[in-house]
Amino acid sequence: MPETYNRIAGHSVERLAALSDGVFAVAMTLLVLDLRVPAAAAVHSDVALWRALAALAPRFLVYLMSFATLGIFWIGQQTQLNHLARGSRELAWLHIGFLFAVTLVPFSTGLIASFIAERAALLAYWGNILLLGVLLLVSWRCAGHSGLIRPDAPAGLRRAVERRIVIAQALYAAGAALCVVSTWLSLGAILLVQLNYVVAPRIAGLDRI
Amino acid sequence: MPETYNRIAGHSVERLAALSDGVFAVAMTLLVLDLRVPAAAAVHSDVALWRALAALAPRFLVYLMSFATLGIFWIGQQTQLNHLARGSRELAWLHIGFLFAVTLVPFSTGLIASFIAERAALLAYWGNILLLGVLLLVSWRCAGHSGLIRPDAPAGLRRAVERRIVIAQALYAAGAALCVVSTWLSLGAILLVQLNYVVAPRIAGLDRI
Amino acid sequence: MPETYNRIAGHSVERLAALSDGVFAVAMTLLVLDLRVPAAAAVHSDVALWRALAALAPRFLVYLMSFATLGIFWIGQQTQLNHLARGSRELAWLHIGFLFAVTLVPFSTGLIASFIAERAALLAYWGNILLLGVLLLVSWRCAGHSGLIRPDAPAGLRRAVERRIVIAQALYAAGAALCVVSTWLSLGAILLVQLNYVVAPRIAGLDRI
Amino acid sequence: MPETYNRIAGHSVERLAALSDGVFAVAMTLLVLDLRVPAAAAVHSDVALWRALAALAPRFLVYLMSFATLGIFWIGQQTQLNHLARGSRELAWLHIGFLFAVTLVPFSTGLIASFIAERAALLAYWGNILLLGVLLLVSWRCAGHSGLIRPDAPAGLRRAVERRIVIAQALYAAGAALCVVSTWLSLGAILLVQLNYVVAPRIAGLDRI
Repeated sequence: MPETYNRIAGHSVERLAALSDGVFAVAMTLLVLDLRVPAAAAVHSDVALWRALAALAPRFLVYLMSFATLGIFWIGQQTQLNHLARGSRELAWLHIGFLFAVTLVPFSTGLIASFIAERAALLAYWGNILLLGVLLLVSWRCAGHSGLIRPDAPAGLRRAVERRIVIAQALYAAGAALCVVSTWLSLGAILLVQLNYVVAPRIAGLDRI
Repeated sequence: MPETYNRIAGHSVERLAALSDGVFAVAMTLLVLDLRVPAAAAVHSDVALWRALAALAPRFLVYLMSFATLGIFWIGQQTQLNHLARGSRELAWLHIGFLFAVTLVPFSTGLIASFIAERAALLAYWGNILLLGVLLLVSWRCAGHSGLIRPDAPAGLRRAVERRIVIAQALYAAGAALCVVSTWLSLGAILLVQLNYVVAPRIAGLDRI
Repeated sequence: MPETYNRIAGHSVERLAALSDGVFAVAMTLLVLDLRVPAAAAVHSDVALWRALAALAPRFLVYLMSFATLGIFWIGQQTQLNHLARGSRELAWLHIGFLFAVTLVPFSTGLIASFIAERAALLAYWGNILLLGVLLLVSWRCAGHSGLIRPDAPAGLRRAVERRIVIAQALYAAGAALCVVSTWLSLGAILLVQLNYVVAPRIAGLDRI
Repeated sequence: MPETYNRIAGHSVERLAALSDGVFAVAMTLLVLDLRVPAAAAVHSDVALWRALAALAPRFLVYLMSFATLGIFWIGQQTQLNHLARGSRELAWLHIGFLFAVTLVPFSTGLIASFIAERAALLAYWGNILLLGVLLLVSWRCAGHSGLIRPDAPAGLRRAVERRIVIAQALYAAGAALCVVSTWLSLGAILLVQLNYVVAPRIAGLDRI
């Protein structure tokens, strides 16, 4: 029986993790690079430079928010990969798709930073977050079905990871829906959801979601 | 007898893998970065922004296709490296040449995204894929001849990897040849070959090629 | 009792180190990329090119200084991570925040390279260094409180790391305060502090700070 | 006796290797990115695109040459790091300096690609190669003096590495000196030296140098 390529390809979780760390590192660094230094020709005093920097503040906040997004999904992905005993070709491709969504974050961030008042920008940004969540969920289910999860993984891990992704995506979707009222309100709601996942406050049982 | 440098240099497969993951990660992220946010001056309404995003769709598809190309060759290279017991100076240089071809992908992708109707762009894109395949094949043969493959590698692995590369390149070449009829047809054919390798459908024995 | 996601996420120190190395590598390389090759149209002789290169010297020095900054903080962070037995979600987020400050270094470097005479630029640059130091200190204290430090870590390590960060930041703050007199003097003082940490002279007990 | 920071910082060879692989990966990828896709406005036919691509050939060759330079020095550095039992703060800083020289390669390559006829560009390019070689030699001597080299390293390794660097730099310097006659001749000579180190022909004992 001939050895088919697909049965031996893409089985290394370590290299998938290394590629992922690389893509996240480049995307995170390039994100902030879009923050342009004010043009020297337009700034002739210390006061003018302070004003130019203050004018960058909204853009700065959007980038900080996208950096947090990348951080949330980096932790989400590594939590999955750390609990895998081995990989598979299917899993590798799902994560490569996930990494494609990661590389789109600088684009959708630039979009929302430039067109914060337009619903198209907000929905594109939310679509990017949705794509990240869906691919992470599908890859986790694939790992479960294919028996790739380490036997010593804590009981309840599978359900905890799935629940986390579904609840987070439901909150993001609710935030995005607010753009019917106002894109600013919608962006604020998404930011609050992200803050919850970064800080994970222990009040009101929010750390359980 | 003096210790010659060439007998001790470039023997670490781990570091070759780390460099490769880094180059792939940067190339993958930069690929999508070429997707420019529409100029704020030209977009004054939500409808205009939707239209500007829709106008980016063909370029978006080309980038998705190139991301898939990089994914295919990343999996191809890691499958080889994972089965090596050790490296050699010759092997290191063949893989560095392969990485050079990887770094050309953003260029040839930009070329085809800008000049989709010109045969020169399509042939340059195909030439890049050909170069990737040839270097991967040569480096695998070098590993075989130099006895670098792990003794516990599955029987038939050597032939399976070679067969995979040769068949894939034959299909890409056939797709590229279609540019005599139309560059769009040619691009569609190359895309179908890539889809086959990403999805690897189990119908009609296609997963055996 | 349900397994909560937060108790299992972000526990891998190895992957945090890999992400950090990636972000530092990209930030370091992009830093120097801002050094633009003189425009070919403006240079028509060998003498003109020497002059154009000489004109780049101040910018070159600022980049060298920022590269040293990144080197100092990379060594500082890896010294911490190398002594951790395991990670935690809180620690992962503190280091992601630290990496955000790392990605700001190319921006604040570009700022000071363009506006070396303005206090706003100098204070923004110092603010970046301060943010790096504060996050490194907080993450080290978090590691200490949460019992993440390896039991075999040398006695006195905890205090040595804290002392190092506090003294360095005090020196940077004193250097930044000199901008009341002159931004050039202030930049020179910060550069001297950095040189001390790079070269660590063994005279006058300076290697003990 | 207080634990001084400098005695415990920068001791991980693995992380130094990871940072180095990252910097090399980014520099290698960015190098080729400077190869700009011809402007769509200036190209209206297939023939025009072939001509525009042919016009890129000299620039392409310069980038290929710089990629080879980075490959040579990557193999040179990893050969050193692979034979170290542990690191030290001094060694870490020497390698960070070496990485700074690596990040300068895209700049000096851009310089020579734009000003191939000017001696200033050629000498700047050679100066970059010289800096890489000197830092690699100094860091290897530092490793030897500080007893960081693995006890199981092959006999003669220390001398072989030093000899290799010194002979290579002598050849590069001789090539650079030819710029008194012509910068093209000088560039050709440097290219031949590089080819020798990439291909390492076994004729005339050239693989022994």
